[in-house]
Amino acid sequence: MPTQPSDLEIARAARKLPIAAVAHGLGIEPSGLVPYGHDKAKIHYRCLDQLDSRDDGHLILVTAISPTPAGEGKTTTTVGLGDALCKIGRKAMICLREPSLGPCFGMKGGAAGGGYAQVVPMTDINLHFTGDFHAIGAAHNLCSAVIDNHVHWDNTLDIDPRRVTWRRVMDMNDRALREITSGLGGPGNGVPRQTGFDITVASEIMAIFCLATNLEDLRDRIGRIVIGETRDRRPVTVEHLQVAGAMTALLRDAFQPNLVQTLENNPALMHGGPFANIAHGCNSVIATRTALKLADYVVTEAGFGADLGAEKFFDIKCRKAGLRPAAVVLVATTRALKMHGGVSRDDLERENCAALRKGCANLGRHIRNLGHFGVPLIVAINRFTTDTPAEHQVIQSCCEELGVDCVVADHWRNGGAGARELAGRVVERVDSRTAQFRTLYDDDMKLWDKTRHIARSLYGAEDIIADKKVRAQFAALEAAGYGRFPVCMAKTQYSFSTDPLLLGAPSGHDVPIREVRLAAGAEFVVVICGDIMTMPGLPRRPSSETIRVDADREIEGLF
Amino acid sequence: MPTQPSDLEIARAARKLPIAAVAHGLGIEPSGLVPYGHDKAKIHYRCLDQLDSRDDGHLILVTAISPTPAGEGKTTTTVGLGDALCKIGRKAMICLREPSLGPCFGMKGGAAGGGYAQVVPMTDINLHFTGDFHAIGAAHNLCSAVIDNHVHWDNTLDIDPRRVTWRRVMDMNDRALREITSGLGGPGNGVPRQTGFDITVASEIMAIFCLATNLEDLRDRIGRIVIGETRDRRPVTVEHLQVAGAMTALLRDAFQPNLVQTLENNPALMHGGPFANIAHGCNSVIATRTALKLADYVVTEAGFGADLGAEKFFDIKCRKAGLRPAAVVLVATTRALKMHGGVSRDDLERENCAALRKGCANLGRHIRNLGHFGVPLIVAINRFTTDTPAEHQVIQSCCEELGVDCVVADHWRNGGAGARELAGRVVERVDSRTAQFRTLYDDDMKLWDKTRHIARSLYGAEDIIADKKVRAQFAALEAAGYGRFPVCMAKTQYSFSTDPLLLGAPSGHDVPIREVRLAAGAEFVVVICGDIMTMPGLPRRPSSETIRVDADREIEGLF
Repeated sequence: MPTQPSDLEIARAARKLPIAAVAHGLGIEPSGLVPYGHDKAKIHYRCLDQLDSRDDGHLILVTAISPTPAGEGKTTTTVGLGDALCKIGRKAMICLREPSLGPCFGMKGGAAGGGYAQVVPMTDINLHFTGDFHAIGAAHNLCSAVIDNHVHWDNTLDIDPRRVTWRRVMDMNDRALREITSGLGGPGNGVPRQTGFDITVASEIMAIFCLATNLEDLRDRIGRIVIGETRDRRPVTVEHLQVAGAMTALLRDAFQPNLVQTLENNPALMHGGPFANIAHGCNSVIATRTALKLADYVVTEAGFGADLGAEKFFDIKCRKAGLRPAAVVLVATTRALKMHGGVSRDDLERENCAALRKGCANLGRHIRNLGHFGVPLIVAINRFTTDTPAEHQVIQSCCEELGVDCVVADHWRNGGAGARELAGRVVERVDSRTAQFRTLYDDDMKLWDKTRHIARSLYGAEDIIADKKVRAQFAALEAAGYGRFPVCMAKTQYSFSTDPLLLGAPSGHDVPIREVRLAAGAEFVVVICGDIMTMPGLPRRPSSETIRVDADREIEGLF
Repeated sequence: MPTQPSDLEIARAARKLPIAAVAHGLGIEPSGLVPYGHDKAKIHYRCLDQLDSRDDGHLILVTAISPTPAGEGKTTTTVGLGDALCKIGRKAMICLREPSLGPCFGMKGGAAGGGYAQVVPMTDINLHFTGDFHAIGAAHNLCSAVIDNHVHWDNTLDIDPRRVTWRRVMDMNDRALREITSGLGGPGNGVPRQTGFDITVASEIMAIFCLATNLEDLRDRIGRIVIGETRDRRPVTVEHLQVAGAMTALLRDAFQPNLVQTLENNPALMHGGPFANIAHGCNSVIATRTALKLADYVVTEAGFGADLGAEKFFDIKCRKAGLRPAAVVLVATTRALKMHGGVSRDDLERENCAALRKGCANLGRHIRNLGHFGVPLIVAINRFTTDTPAEHQVIQSCCEELGVDCVVADHWRNGGAGARELAGRVVERVDSRTAQFRTLYDDDMKLWDKTRHIARSLYGAEDIIADKKVRAQFAALEAAGYGRFPVCMAKTQYSFSTDPLLLGAPSGHDVPIREVRLAAGAEFVVVICGDIMTMPGLPRRPSSETIRVDADREIEGLF
């Protein structure tokens, strides 16, 4: 079997349409576009305004089993399914998150799909793209500068410098910025205090950007962000600092969704990219809504496995934006399920049906979990070249036992054509209109109970546990009127438990809660279980050592 | 007299051409452009490559007397002169620096001209524009992250964390970041050390970006940057860290010059914007060279007054890029010269010929200084509404005595039409081809002697002084082979002396040198005289309090 060219080679060989032609296919005229080069564009507000009266298409979520280092291919499957839907004659488009710049210089792979199921221009998308993350970073850091400036001058709000929770952000993997002391060097440089930087995708601005329904809502949510407390422990908001307007000004252009295309010239929106742990891990509501107006079938994805990504997609994004998903595709791979069955990373190439059968416990748990949300489910096996028919049979039997459709998809090697069967099955389920979407819990359940309910019904946990201080945080948030917010679980993505090494489908464990954080602008309460890293570091040999511009001014070594 | 609308109102009412039409006027086809919206574009490398064989137009520098809070209008005059040249039928364009984002939220005015002599789209230009400064910031901070990462892991280069001079940057006025300790919080967060942030325009990457002649030169200069020293005091370069390629990849798109237009639809390149104190304060060489290929007359400006801006333009930019300027316009205002003559800011509206006559000493010194460079000079009085004919007469007499042309220009109120006479005079001088450009000093003069020569011949100083440590720095740089670099003077822009309050034309003073810094990639040695701020702060009431997006999604309050 000949080897397939690398993702970068495939992306570079793409025969892209001018982005104006892609837009034209959606009925968008040039005046409704803000071009960024010839192959990227934002959809202008004036176009968005005109879409409001249209009917919505059907929303399809692509999620996955618990991730392993073996890879699942969620984005790849989203792209492949979108292309396949177009191939079978449906008006379809996809909605993805934008990738973060920082991790590109560490060791991350691309975040624009893979093989013959990619969005392009790949290099641009992975670097500055249309500047959205830079704008989000600038808005975030303007707020930080204004906080310290306020304390430096008169501090009329009586901000307690020790209780400022708003940090700074940078779109870079830079561990040395995790914990810093700022304001050193004398009175001219402000008031010294301990603080730090997160990576830009961890900013609450990013979460708000992805949940706001329009520019006014964006501004109001920014105003409601709590940045810390006064000396007498009253919350201080961005509104108090009078900077919400300026922060919104910095985001005005960025807030328009980005249009790109797949290798097969089908339209794709990529917009926003919040962390999937301390935030909800989905692309922007404004992009999803726009896509639903422009296409009959919209395929989107959510970060990490279904226990985190799909749950937050349903319980945070769909709840808040009033979206009603029509179908879910759960991506599994033989490789990842073998790892869940105990196979080490080096032995994945070998057929091992016994381990696979064992690993299917992870798949089974996700299938049962997704049943809670009332949306028809199809399992997609994202085919790897080393898969065997016997292995596929194991997964298919597992699905059969659980009464769930299972389709092998080969889009990585064959693009949309490789996912035709999957697309057909999805259309069948969507058009049957059997979806009865419901969230996992109601708004008026208490925060503690919401958390326990998620842990028990999705993670298979016995209970959630927390010390007195954390329980007091829960109580304080209820008392302050935030009890109706959904919870945003920040847990390892690798396991249903809080131990990343516990693969498969553990149950009966306790979920220890370490901390609770309010995201008053994003309108959720982050429940942190275990170590959550909000500023990655670079590895010993970062890929920045191999990235370069070649003699044709093409970027090499990015992946 | 009816009041003129605000700069923002004028800019918003501009009847812009599509940027593709502006480019078409320059002979650039759509494929030679990278559009950013419909009114901004980068000129693509493939177009730049094609220009190489063309002849160069004439380069005209706009500089000014020593700045005062009263304002001079250097950018405004650059725009007005460009428009006027077009109005009298010449093929002209202008080259400006891009403004920095951070200061917009403090109290800075716009950096895109003023009145009826502006470049547009003004709001975009003043905010993210085409993302160049974000790209420069990312490239800079990638290097910072790689330095700390290297020290964190094996430190095979034996970098001394106490001697890392490379800081981080942010395009924000944030005094609390001037001095920080990073790497706190335990071994997982790297090695603690003292460091800090500068504003992005102060980055050496910015200076390199503006001096590099092509992408390869950019990469090589980045590689030569010295970021600190090893434990045994050997210099550590970016090349050693193997990150020059990745930094260049981040800058690849940004390095293409930005095309915008004036209110009168004439072409303008805005590209790069290094500080005018610790760097050379001119737009990019690549933009200037491109403009010279595209137009017969290219008007450009340099930061601060002529003692700093023009000197560096000639001695650093022109020397290094092989540019041969054809004429210089020196901008003066009655208001600023009255301040130099001792009038307080509150009394500037009143006619005061005596003070003005006294203040003309500042103008006279700049006129004599510019004589050193062998380029024909015209003084432009940038007319303010409160000017009186008698006042103009004072300035004109002063110029007459010195044998220099002096023209009143009214572009702020009348656009290009207001600067017709100035344009005519400039064309006369340029077409007479009398320019005999020479730098102030030769490469092989010693660094100390270069510095003293500038201080004596331009600042009117008696001598330069420095303690033993600083003299040793000069000697060390000579020994290390950097003696042939030009010097980049970092001195207050308000006075010929190092005392910002000493207006007019002081002489006989000593210039104390506090520090010397090597910019090995930019290829100059920064000589710091007095306090130089590389990270501004926000004022007590920052303009971030009034900036907002209005109901039409227009940005309000930016100026």
